[in-house]
Amino acid sequence: MSAGGTVVHKLDSWRLNSEPYYQPVGHEVEAFMAAHAARLPLLLKGPTGCGKTRFVEYMAWRLALPLVTIACHEDLSAGDLAGRWLLDAQGTHWQDGPLALAARYGGICYLDELVEARSDATVLLHPLADTRRMLPLERHGELVHAHRDFQLVVSYNPGYHGMQKGLKPSMRQRFTALEFDYPDAAVEAAIVAREGDVPLDIATQLVALGQRTRRLQEHGLEEGASTRMLVHAAILLREGLLPRAACMQAIATPLSDDADISAALRGVVHASFV
Amino acid sequence: MSAGGTVVHKLDSWRLNSEPYYQPVGHEVEAFMAAHAARLPLLLKGPTGCGKTRFVEYMAWRLALPLVTIACHEDLSAGDLAGRWLLDAQGTHWQDGPLALAARYGGICYLDELVEARSDATVLLHPLADTRRMLPLERHGELVHAHRDFQLVVSYNPGYHGMQKGLKPSMRQRFTALEFDYPDAAVEAAIVAREGDVPLDIATQLVALGQRTRRLQEHGLEEGASTRMLVHAAILLREGLLPRAACMQAIATPLSDDADISAALRGVVHASFV
Amino acid sequence: MSAGGTVVHKLDSWRLNSEPYYQPVGHEVEAFMAAHAARLPLLLKGPTGCGKTRFVEYMAWRLALPLVTIACHEDLSAGDLAGRWLLDAQGTHWQDGPLALAARYGGICYLDELVEARSDATVLLHPLADTRRMLPLERHGELVHAHRDFQLVVSYNPGYHGMQKGLKPSMRQRFTALEFDYPDAAVEAAIVAREGDVPLDIATQLVALGQRTRRLQEHGLEEGASTRMLVHAAILLREGLLPRAACMQAIATPLSDDADISAALRGVVHASFV
Amino acid sequence: MSAGGTVVHKLDSWRLNSEPYYQPVGHEVEAFMAAHAARLPLLLKGPTGCGKTRFVEYMAWRLALPLVTIACHEDLSAGDLAGRWLLDAQGTHWQDGPLALAARYGGICYLDELVEARSDATVLLHPLADTRRMLPLERHGELVHAHRDFQLVVSYNPGYHGMQKGLKPSMRQRFTALEFDYPDAAVEAAIVAREGDVPLDIATQLVALGQRTRRLQEHGLEEGASTRMLVHAAILLREGLLPRAACMQAIATPLSDDADISAALRGVVHASFV
Amino acid sequence: MSAGGTVVHKLDSWRLNSEPYYQPVGHEVEAFMAAHAARLPLLLKGPTGCGKTRFVEYMAWRLALPLVTIACHEDLSAGDLAGRWLLDAQGTHWQDGPLALAARYGGICYLDELVEARSDATVLLHPLADTRRMLPLERHGELVHAHRDFQLVVSYNPGYHGMQKGLKPSMRQRFTALEFDYPDAAVEAAIVAREGDVPLDIATQLVALGQRTRRLQEHGLEEGASTRMLVHAAILLREGLLPRAACMQAIATPLSDDADISAALRGVVHASFV
Amino acid sequence: MSAGGTVVHKLDSWRLNSEPYYQPVGHEVEAFMAAHAARLPLLLKGPTGCGKTRFVEYMAWRLALPLVTIACHEDLSAGDLAGRWLLDAQGTHWQDGPLALAARYGGICYLDELVEARSDATVLLHPLADTRRMLPLERHGELVHAHRDFQLVVSYNPGYHGMQKGLKPSMRQRFTALEFDYPDAAVEAAIVAREGDVPLDIATQLVALGQRTRRLQEHGLEEGASTRMLVHAAILLREGLLPRAACMQAIATPLSDDADISAALRGVVHASFV
Repeated sequence: MSAGGTVVHKLDSWRLNSEPYYQPVGHEVEAFMAAHAARLPLLLKGPTGCGKTRFVEYMAWRLALPLVTIACHEDLSAGDLAGRWLLDAQGTHWQDGPLALAARYGGICYLDELVEARSDATVLLHPLADTRRMLPLERHGELVHAHRDFQLVVSYNPGYHGMQKGLKPSMRQRFTALEFDYPDAAVEAAIVAREGDVPLDIATQLVALGQRTRRLQEHGLEEGASTRMLVHAAILLREGLLPRAACMQAIATPLSDDADISAALRGVVHASFV
Repeated sequence: MSAGGTVVHKLDSWRLNSEPYYQPVGHEVEAFMAAHAARLPLLLKGPTGCGKTRFVEYMAWRLALPLVTIACHEDLSAGDLAGRWLLDAQGTHWQDGPLALAARYGGICYLDELVEARSDATVLLHPLADTRRMLPLERHGELVHAHRDFQLVVSYNPGYHGMQKGLKPSMRQRFTALEFDYPDAAVEAAIVAREGDVPLDIATQLVALGQRTRRLQEHGLEEGASTRMLVHAAILLREGLLPRAACMQAIATPLSDDADISAALRGVVHASFV
Repeated sequence: MSAGGTVVHKLDSWRLNSEPYYQPVGHEVEAFMAAHAARLPLLLKGPTGCGKTRFVEYMAWRLALPLVTIACHEDLSAGDLAGRWLLDAQGTHWQDGPLALAARYGGICYLDELVEARSDATVLLHPLADTRRMLPLERHGELVHAHRDFQLVVSYNPGYHGMQKGLKPSMRQRFTALEFDYPDAAVEAAIVAREGDVPLDIATQLVALGQRTRRLQEHGLEEGASTRMLVHAAILLREGLLPRAACMQAIATPLSDDADISAALRGVVHASFV
Repeated sequence: MSAGGTVVHKLDSWRLNSEPYYQPVGHEVEAFMAAHAARLPLLLKGPTGCGKTRFVEYMAWRLALPLVTIACHEDLSAGDLAGRWLLDAQGTHWQDGPLALAARYGGICYLDELVEARSDATVLLHPLADTRRMLPLERHGELVHAHRDFQLVVSYNPGYHGMQKGLKPSMRQRFTALEFDYPDAAVEAAIVAREGDVPLDIATQLVALGQRTRRLQEHGLEEGASTRMLVHAAILLREGLLPRAACMQAIATPLSDDADISAALRGVVHASFV
Repeated sequence: MSAGGTVVHKLDSWRLNSEPYYQPVGHEVEAFMAAHAARLPLLLKGPTGCGKTRFVEYMAWRLALPLVTIACHEDLSAGDLAGRWLLDAQGTHWQDGPLALAARYGGICYLDELVEARSDATVLLHPLADTRRMLPLERHGELVHAHRDFQLVVSYNPGYHGMQKGLKPSMRQRFTALEFDYPDAAVEAAIVAREGDVPLDIATQLVALGQRTRRLQEHGLEEGASTRMLVHAAILLREGLLPRAACMQAIATPLSDDADISAALRGVVHASFV
Repeated sequence: MSAGGTVVHKLDSWRLNSEPYYQPVGHEVEAFMAAHAARLPLLLKGPTGCGKTRFVEYMAWRLALPLVTIACHEDLSAGDLAGRWLLDAQGTHWQDGPLALAARYGGICYLDELVEARSDATVLLHPLADTRRMLPLERHGELVHAHRDFQLVVSYNPGYHGMQKGLKPSMRQRFTALEFDYPDAAVEAAIVAREGDVPLDIATQLVALGQRTRRLQEHGLEEGASTRMLVHAAILLREGLLPRAACMQAIATPLSDDADISAALRGVVHASFV
């Protein structure tokens, strides 16, 4: 049973060890379940750090499926997804890439920021994302028919990619999609309090600060503070930093290099904590 | 008979296992048969998701031929089509690429979105696409004369490629061509009802919605909802989502990231289902 | 005699098996023979599908020489022409590229659409194309003196390459050249009738249609229908399609994606066949 | 215990041999300790040569952790950080890159001038920089969970990168950040005196000169003299050069090639030392 | 003496077998001899086909030196000149590139159209082209001190390279240089008569035609007919073509694709031969 | 002691065999000695052929150190400097690049025209050029601490690189720098007389000619004649050429391809020698 053991091992390292904390903000769980029932591919749109990745982790846990995550970038090629030949003492052997692993053994394959990937990587998803559900490993001379537990999930942030970058219609037409945004203030405060291990009133103050930074997007800030950043500030507070120092370090200083925007962010921090 | 067995196996994985559902919309079946009788290469033009791929699958099934499908992209090179040398314990062996497989053993080779391919990949088709019907595998030092069952089919969507991308005359002049469009409303509704497993009246409503989105192309939408998207919406409905939620997830949200167009799409969804 | 046998075999796959049908349109046969007698390189200029390749095949047959054809493209490199080292169980061995094969063993080397090739590929032709008649295989550490039967023939279509692409003077000055155009109507009709296996009156109608499309070049069409396209239409007619359907599929639909030009082409088809 | 010995050895070459001299200029030590306690990633912003690298060395010494430093550049790829397969007599073996070493065995990984790195290198940091703290070594088929002593520190100089270069929001949102600047005159003079081994009055004069060059940034100088340059001048003085010659060689000549700015710098040197 | 035999063999293939015909047009032989006596590098400037290559061949014959010729192009890299490691059954062995061969064993290394080469190839010449006369083979870990018989000669045509291409001052300053042009009419006619094996009066008519084409350079022709082209016309005449047909094929048709210039060239041919 | 012998041998080929002739023009020797005493990196700025390379050779001889020279270019990569893995019968072995050799065994490493190098090559110098004095050989998994005799010297010519090319501040701030120019007329004449082996009056005339060409820089000439070019002219004179012919070949013809500037240079030659 060593081969079977190997298979289990390969995907086991991609299983979650504990239930991820996730607070639903709408009907996204039902929407995911409906797409999953028919194995329709799912596209998640929304700003950085609003919880898309955590949501996918939560769904993978709930469905008891391994989660293979791939962060896309401009140099991500088809070979990085599909696999490649490696040379060893016996000659060469084929090593499945993460997409091939998920398709072959079953699991959720989550491609984060798909619009960043190269065209050859994107096109590789076409036959996996329609009714054919197959992955041609051309360099391996093999046509993988996807495991029944395989599901494709991708995400991107439509906000900060310029007009020049986006999904081609041939890609869009293969996906069902959900739109995400930051949670409501009360929900977000609960998340910050829990993840940052701080009292709820502190968390509420941090959420108010975060919302003020998000309004600066109309004044040139690329993106406001994500829930993740508010959690960072809570953690630094918990570790003993003063509120303003924690917020500067966790929120204002990382968010921008622009002198005017930095001054505005500093103003927001000073107005939020005395 | 192991070599023969290998040959059969190679192309057998590219054979269709069951008859694909296809509803003819004109004389395309006769046109394909005439081109096939003389083994003239065929070019299919039309929008994404209107049924080109399904049509080729149907014809391959009807002609009882393997169908080798290749999704073209900007990094698709001649080596990806023709094959390459792989290193193993005995030194190197040659592995045919998908085009060489189809040419050598006989079958339909279907290149989807040909205009996306690199020039070296495109030019490799020249001697296969005229009366020579040969494929020079220069790196293998071999000149493959195409199997009598080999036929070349390519497709692309002339709508969303800019002026800068298109086939060169030396390519166009080697192909016969058919133009595709979305089917008539009644035919499309029948397809959606059958593929989405929903009652015909629901399918008819979805087709009406789809047609409204296609009219938005004059207002900046890159492409309207394909038949495939309408099937997605039907499936989500069947899985228990409410009509508006199903149509948002299957159609409106994936189709565009633009705020104005998204609002228009939402309006279309709300007007179509109460 | 195995080495000799190998040599013969290598070029034998590039020999023509039967006499190609070719109808001379001027003194091109004499011009080719004079250049061949002194082994002067020859450049053929003219539109796609007007018979340049067929002419070279005919001359190779008449001179009883192998014909090594290379379709040039933007990624064609010197290594693709000259050869490369391949790894096998005994280490590496050198594999001649098609140009080296032709130069070493004697034959016509025909480079189609030379202007598309990369500069390193083009420059490799310099010492072969002047009185030195040699090919330095630098990676093989060898200087091949061309076989006395070696002759270099290249072609390109000056019509559709933009101003930015063309041969450099250092290349032009090494070649003698012939200009090709579509044959006269009567000659072309004879070709279409013979190649498409249709009666001469049908072929004459098709040639008239072809000439009308060529006049559309002044109205934005990139290239008019080639003789090859007319033969395609004849074949589809022979296979049972109606004349208009055959001409749309073989000529009008492949020629252009532009709405206005497509309408003009459809008009030409409808005016030519009732 | 040879394997363990190897592990120790690998990171031991990245340990500091003696305490680096560092003079705190604010609360940066406490800020680092708070981020380190929660293993939050840290981003240091500030001009070249103001002491960012020295600060990280000091913190690594204080925390008794190895410090793996990586200077980023436009060609730095994911493979350079993660590792690669190397061929040896037994076939291939995997060699961890510096980031993988730090993540696997525990230590501070410091990426200098992160904005210069290629996108595939940057994206590799994503799962290491959030709560997942993992590094997928896709080519090794391994998912490394970061050692509990692993911490990620990056730096860049927002001043001289153009608008076109900067961190993407998805990166910024994962980091807490500190801003650095040149130290106060008295602190800087103490540093120059100690590092350059010159009397304090000489060091004070050099710091005054440095501050004058920094004011030239408003007149087109890319960056003023760093503390490091002032130390260089002190060293050349100590080696016997005359003050003006030492300052020209250490400060004015390297700082600019522009004729006008060079004249201004020469004026500053002549005004500072007689 | 096998090693010595190998050495002799390597460069022997680059020796000329017979005296090249060369007709001096000025003091270029003395100038070459003076540069050669001190082994100063020599740069030859002049139009295509005016005899630069033939001159270098003649000097190599006269000096009884091997002549290693390298045609430069945009993809010519340092490795193509210096050499590379090749894999064989015993592991790898180093193979000298043509520049290394000439430097190591002594001979004239002639780089044609140097401005086309990549910068890494050009820079490799620096230490060979000054008093150091050495070639660092970095990948071989070797520093080759040039053989005393080594001399560097390069050429290019300043006429048709745009402003954007040219030698850098660091290259120019290492070379002595000679300027070439087409020979006088009488000398050129003697060359054409001898090389084309035609009577002198025919050769004189061809030279007159050539001079007329050169005047067309002021009217947009890139380069007029070279001496080589006139020889081609003479050969085609000798092979039995009529004068106008020979001149069209050898001169007018290859020289230009532009309709107006082609008409002017045809006029020049018709005016030259009845 | 074979290993030691190998070490000595490696750097011995980079030792100078005889004292280079160098005529100091200012306090550059003292400046070099001071930087060398503290092992501060040194940057030499100045025009081509003014003696920078010779100066470094002289200092290496005087300090009895090996001199490893690297000519930088646009394709110079980190691997070219640091080293690479080579395959042999025993698997792979690491071969130090020239920078690693100098750092490991001690010597002056001189990078000529540093601004031409790729960013990954430049960044490799950072940790070697500051107080860390270390070279991370990431592909070798090794951190080289520089030998105590290692010193880094780089040069470039700020005159002819456009605004777009220059050193980044992070590089400038690590170097001390000296500026070079052509020597005074008397010194330059002595150099030309000695190196060219001609009488001083001839050398003086050549220097006067050189100075006239340098004034043409204001009229569009990229660079005037370097001392090296004047030496070339002296050598050609010594070999028997007439003065004007020698100066045309050594100075005027190589310096420019521009018709107007060439005429001006010819005028300068004719005015200088009758």
